[in-house]
Amino acid sequence: MMFSNRETIDLFEYLCTQIKKIGIQSVHGVPGDFNLVALDYVEKCGLTWVGNCNELNAGYAADGYARINGMSALMTVMGVGELSALNAIAGAFAEYVPVIHIVGKPSRQAQKNRLCVHHSLGNGDFNVFDEMSRRVSCLTVNIENVETAPSLIDEAIQTCWIQSRPVTIYIPCDMFRIPIRCEKLHIRPVFGRHMPPDDVRAHEQLIDTAMREIQQATNPVILVGGYGIQHGAKADLDEFLAQVDFPVFAAGSGLGIVDSSLPRFAGLYVGSWSDERVLSMMKPADLVICIGNIQSDLTTSGFSGVIDHTRSIEIQRTKTTVKGRVFDYVHVNSVLRAFAAKLRTSSTESVCVDASQHNSAHSFVGNNTQGPISSVEKISLFKSGLQILTSLQKSVNPFPYLWPKVTGEMEYLSEKSTSITHDWFWTSLGKWLKAGDIILTETGTASFGIWNTTLPPDSIFIAQYLWSSIGYTVGACEGAAQAVRDSANPTRRTILFIGDGSLQCGCQELSTIIRQGLTPIMLLTLSVSFVICNNGYTVERLIHGEKQIYNDIQPWDHRLLPAVFGAAPGTYQTHRVESTADLEALWRSASFTNCSFLQLIELCVAQEDAPSNLVALARSLHERNA
Amino acid sequence: MMFSNRETIDLFEYLCTQIKKIGIQSVHGVPGDFNLVALDYVEKCGLTWVGNCNELNAGYAADGYARINGMSALMTVMGVGELSALNAIAGAFAEYVPVIHIVGKPSRQAQKNRLCVHHSLGNGDFNVFDEMSRRVSCLTVNIENVETAPSLIDEAIQTCWIQSRPVTIYIPCDMFRIPIRCEKLHIRPVFGRHMPPDDVRAHEQLIDTAMREIQQATNPVILVGGYGIQHGAKADLDEFLAQVDFPVFAAGSGLGIVDSSLPRFAGLYVGSWSDERVLSMMKPADLVICIGNIQSDLTTSGFSGVIDHTRSIEIQRTKTTVKGRVFDYVHVNSVLRAFAAKLRTSSTESVCVDASQHNSAHSFVGNNTQGPISSVEKISLFKSGLQILTSLQKSVNPFPYLWPKVTGEMEYLSEKSTSITHDWFWTSLGKWLKAGDIILTETGTASFGIWNTTLPPDSIFIAQYLWSSIGYTVGACEGAAQAVRDSANPTRRTILFIGDGSLQCGCQELSTIIRQGLTPIMLLTLSVSFVICNNGYTVERLIHGEKQIYNDIQPWDHRLLPAVFGAAPGTYQTHRVESTADLEALWRSASFTNCSFLQLIELCVAQEDAPSNLVALARSLHERNA
Repeated sequence: MMFSNRETIDLFEYLCTQIKKIGIQSVHGVPGDFNLVALDYVEKCGLTWVGNCNELNAGYAADGYARINGMSALMTVMGVGELSALNAIAGAFAEYVPVIHIVGKPSRQAQKNRLCVHHSLGNGDFNVFDEMSRRVSCLTVNIENVETAPSLIDEAIQTCWIQSRPVTIYIPCDMFRIPIRCEKLHIRPVFGRHMPPDDVRAHEQLIDTAMREIQQATNPVILVGGYGIQHGAKADLDEFLAQVDFPVFAAGSGLGIVDSSLPRFAGLYVGSWSDERVLSMMKPADLVICIGNIQSDLTTSGFSGVIDHTRSIEIQRTKTTVKGRVFDYVHVNSVLRAFAAKLRTSSTESVCVDASQHNSAHSFVGNNTQGPISSVEKISLFKSGLQILTSLQKSVNPFPYLWPKVTGEMEYLSEKSTSITHDWFWTSLGKWLKAGDIILTETGTASFGIWNTTLPPDSIFIAQYLWSSIGYTVGACEGAAQAVRDSANPTRRTILFIGDGSLQCGCQELSTIIRQGLTPIMLLTLSVSFVICNNGYTVERLIHGEKQIYNDIQPWDHRLLPAVFGAAPGTYQTHRVESTADLEALWRSASFTNCSFLQLIELCVAQEDAPSNLVALARSLHERNA
Repeated sequence: MMFSNRETIDLFEYLCTQIKKIGIQSVHGVPGDFNLVALDYVEKCGLTWVGNCNELNAGYAADGYARINGMSALMTVMGVGELSALNAIAGAFAEYVPVIHIVGKPSRQAQKNRLCVHHSLGNGDFNVFDEMSRRVSCLTVNIENVETAPSLIDEAIQTCWIQSRPVTIYIPCDMFRIPIRCEKLHIRPVFGRHMPPDDVRAHEQLIDTAMREIQQATNPVILVGGYGIQHGAKADLDEFLAQVDFPVFAAGSGLGIVDSSLPRFAGLYVGSWSDERVLSMMKPADLVICIGNIQSDLTTSGFSGVIDHTRSIEIQRTKTTVKGRVFDYVHVNSVLRAFAAKLRTSSTESVCVDASQHNSAHSFVGNNTQGPISSVEKISLFKSGLQILTSLQKSVNPFPYLWPKVTGEMEYLSEKSTSITHDWFWTSLGKWLKAGDIILTETGTASFGIWNTTLPPDSIFIAQYLWSSIGYTVGACEGAAQAVRDSANPTRRTILFIGDGSLQCGCQELSTIIRQGLTPIMLLTLSVSFVICNNGYTVERLIHGEKQIYNDIQPWDHRLLPAVFGAAPGTYQTHRVESTADLEALWRSASFTNCSFLQLIELCVAQEDAPSNLVALARSLHERNA
């Protein structure tokens, strides 16, 4: 261990060392008097301190950082800072994002004496906030003595990784500097980005049960979401998908997880809004293997296309459910590895688990097919474990692409310049995106518009389809850009799509982006009415109150934002884009496209315009709320 | 009742009607799909909808509104919005501010079916957030059926008023439009800004016990704080203070509650930092009648001057504690009225409750007096109930003013212009302030600097000495200015003192101020180092990390803020003030002083400068944290 040549290590230095060891390089947060002494160790341990403007934005940033880096750390103080960040932590909990939330508490003496210190409720209760935070943390630990501190810290960090959800570590401010004897640390177990071994019995039973279901299924399909599988299981997922020969769909949250150039990739499944060809393939599916998926109203077109338990295998980070039967303590990586191995083995041996019942190829034909899906109808689909595709077969995608394939040179769709509509924008966007891009879409027009876009290979996609907190992506963009800079490939582009109303929630984090010298591209889909200048919450207008003033916002001069937040002239560019020609010119510009500057683009669309899928979804939400 | 000529009233119209009836005219919040239908009723019922930029700021604004208006309402949606506002709600709970938090929830059907709707954790648990909010609410109600809805709504609003603390009202979004039969509402009890009757027995015992203590005390004094007494008890407090003839101190939070021109006013008691003359009077006090006071570390110079239970009567909003003995269900207004009546009666009758033991005047002499306090030493103080002062006596203040008396014309202290120091600024400020001003100070340099300022009569002072959430006052300023506009005297000035670091937390609420056409004066105490341009968290620097980068912030061009937030040219003024002469010139300018425009002033002080009391306090906090 790295502290082997020392006798002691200070408690918070230990924590920073472990954070760094697990691969976190930047720490987000806001200083406060109960964490100041701790902050001294951050830079000292070679970590970057990213001071955010407020704790909610810091929490969002930590979430964004973790979605790229695999884990992140956030520092606040008890009460004020902790509660300000709670929405972000709850979002990370709902969306399976591993954030280590470190909360500085008053000294042990102050707590013991129930002192009426600031940032408390004044009633001597210093655990009341724990009771709030622990409901959105997969583990909460209170560091109270030096003997147990290292193991509690390790356990919290390790649990955060395993569960892919936030943990909260409370440390009294008098303990940061307390020395720990290093000799005790040498006997500690392996620590790092490891998943624990599965429960052997549960694992075996699961694989048997699941393989039987797969073999018995007539029309099995795969649906990949974006929850808890990006880190620690991505390679296993790719290997598994390489072994199967039935259709693979991406859920709305799963963009960027499944490569759309994968041979078996069959499109985006988002409930009833899905393309008709997708619906015709999903409807007759008698087994849907869901991986890292959450079926929220927003990803199922308002529950219109929920895959129910009677026909699903749901593989989640630490458990798998086969047609309603739950197998706990089995982990997504080992489950996917086992499935892949079974498929490999059975194909090599030409044997399957239950070959007697189902040993022939099945014809995959959609019921009630509307429109031409001839290529699908004609293809015989071979179930995994029954017959292996040849290399040649694997390289040919039997399923029609839903999205236009992106090829080499950019060719733009628009023949003459017109005003920009959401539907034009999102379908054209794919041509400008590049392999490896980090793409963030704010809940609202952006996160639904993006479903019309073909994402490039190796892109990482960030959005909140379950928690859906407005304003999330400003902070998340800062965190994601920071994580890219900390990564092995720091030239990847970070691109944020956000509406004007959402930007107002957390606008000041643009200041942190500037301060840290980060250079994301921020495309602001500004709703502009040519009749009255009311901007605001388009998604809310679609649900209820189209013309109501409560859905308006104050119009801002967004292009002044970098200057007000202290960006030096020459270090950023702003643009206002009002036509398709304007945008295409920008996309052709190397200085814009290469992301060497911070770019802020006001993209003007008509106020009443929205992606057509969002219009449909909003109608469903409106009905359900009434 | 106002709905007597109708058969039914929609549920949310009923809530809006009751909110208006209790004196709230503007509703703060952010729209979200679980509250949109409710928002339709806000304007319809004659209330103003103040759409804030985010929910934390909206919560702060509701807090500021309530501190002026007596109550306020905040609307959010479950989960995201609710949790974003939680820090503000916790602050209102800690600081006894009555905010009605109305949270729109998913429909009853969605909750019953445990649907995986957005803004939830995805686990079907729709009460998890209630469990968080209720820990910082004095009452939480879930509206679930139309029969009980009106009484639950009334109970929540009434409890909010009585306890002077937040309540949370959850309403499923499908219930907003459900009609209530008006006939049922006619039998409802009286509703409004009333305190309930005291528990008769507790009240009698309390008054007997307390009066005995008062009469037995040799050196009784009064200490008035700012918690839960501004609304519903201010007239009773004034009457009580008019009856007593022993020294009256203001606590740090009590500025503006006690008029400093009150004859018996003896100064500001803030623990060991207090003026020596105050300390010499407080030290020998054997009974301290604390009214609406909370002794936090920040108001007692780090617990150096806590008044312990053995010598105190603590009168709080709904209970009173006499030397540790708690009397519940007795309310500050009736307790103060009873005390005042006892004092009046006993003085008229020349009888006191326990006259046999203590029937003579006592000489009030401070122990260990350092320096000249001759006027105090020579004065014979007469205890309440034993001897009434004549009108003449009452009009003469026997106690030396701690602060320079403000007289008619402004006379400035500075003979030649110099750079601005905190100590100069805060002592000079009193000359510019006017009767009726609303004064907000952010936690940090401003909230400690203001203790050096003589506040004018009828001013209202807003600061958080217990919760101390950085960034609070930006939103609170919007809310306070909105409440002033809603009040009988809309020309009162709203003046905010805030540092640059705090402004960054919630800067976007300046946009709401602009949108609503409010015209506060915002003085930004900008720390400027003439060596390096590092601004940031002065209060944190004083506690720990003076030169550490985590206490720096990104420098902003603050004077661009109004323009970026959409203020039209000519509707605002910005200033940068670098010398005493600059500031005095501004103070003499009528257009600045009359508050007809939004004014944003950068006030430059040296980075290492701070109010001397804050320097001392920070030292104590540093030691306690270590």
